[in-house]
Amino acid sequence: MATAAAALNGAVADKVGVVIVDHGSRKKDSNEMLVEFGRLYEQLTGQEIVEVAHMEIARPTIEEAVARCAERGARRVVIAPYFLSRGRHIQEDIPALVREAQQKHPGLQCTIADPIGIDPLMVRLIGNRVAAALERPGPDGVAAAAAAPALAVTDRAQA
Amino acid sequence: MATAAAALNGAVADKVGVVIVDHGSRKKDSNEMLVEFGRLYEQLTGQEIVEVAHMEIARPTIEEAVARCAERGARRVVIAPYFLSRGRHIQEDIPALVREAQQKHPGLQCTIADPIGIDPLMVRLIGNRVAAALERPGPDGVAAAAAAPALAVTDRAQA
Repeated sequence: MATAAAALNGAVADKVGVVIVDHGSRKKDSNEMLVEFGRLYEQLTGQEIVEVAHMEIARPTIEEAVARCAERGARRVVIAPYFLSRGRHIQEDIPALVREAQQKHPGLQCTIADPIGIDPLMVRLIGNRVAAALERPGPDGVAAAAAAPALAVTDRAQA
Repeated sequence: MATAAAALNGAVADKVGVVIVDHGSRKKDSNEMLVEFGRLYEQLTGQEIVEVAHMEIARPTIEEAVARCAERGARRVVIAPYFLSRGRHIQEDIPALVREAQQKHPGLQCTIADPIGIDPLMVRLIGNRVAAALERPGPDGVAAAAAAPALAVTDRAQA
């Protein structure tokens, strides 16, 4: 469906690239988690051009990921911060890095998306984690899955 | 509906408290964001006992939030980490703090939920942020909302 829609809108829409950017870590596992998330994003959204980047410490950098989007034919790039809250990294560091990347690629239009923030989808996600924890057997070997309010979480949030 | 379910299961289920725990920050805004998330969680899930806590730096501590759940009648407490990935805080620091809290409240059963991690719901959330960024007017004053693949994101991820 995404392919058909893309073909349909191909004439009017600039080709979009998405760069998902996290903080960056010295730990390989943490950086690889973002790569895994990028793959899932690509798979579930059907978005053709998806790259990941780390704000600092690890590579690819934001500029490298933006360059890769350009190489892959993007005309517009959305930088999506994989950050929970709107701290200094969101307000200062990432905008500065995106400005630098933008200057190196004047033909591209770069836009920064909002960070994760407060969202009902996150309530559902945390609600699912809570429900799964309650389903684990307790010390007495009996699952406490009957605990109703926590399980009702998902239903209400889905409505 | 959650209320009816709770009443129905009241006899068989231990009363559950949920403690949503983040890292904790020197910035008031960041700590207040978690309070706001806790309120939304309570509101959308219908969960009766919801407390927030900070792993370090700010209060309430995990122990304080667990104590508050006990005061409010919880018999079982799920500590839900508001952390993106499974780093040292998840593997060592939070379990140590929960063990301490558990020792002070032997009548409670404390369980730690998984952190946020990789999840299709997060793909939807980031997809929504990307779509919103694309709807903002570009430098030429024209919204790039026609960019099909990014907008198809939400539909496919919802399916």
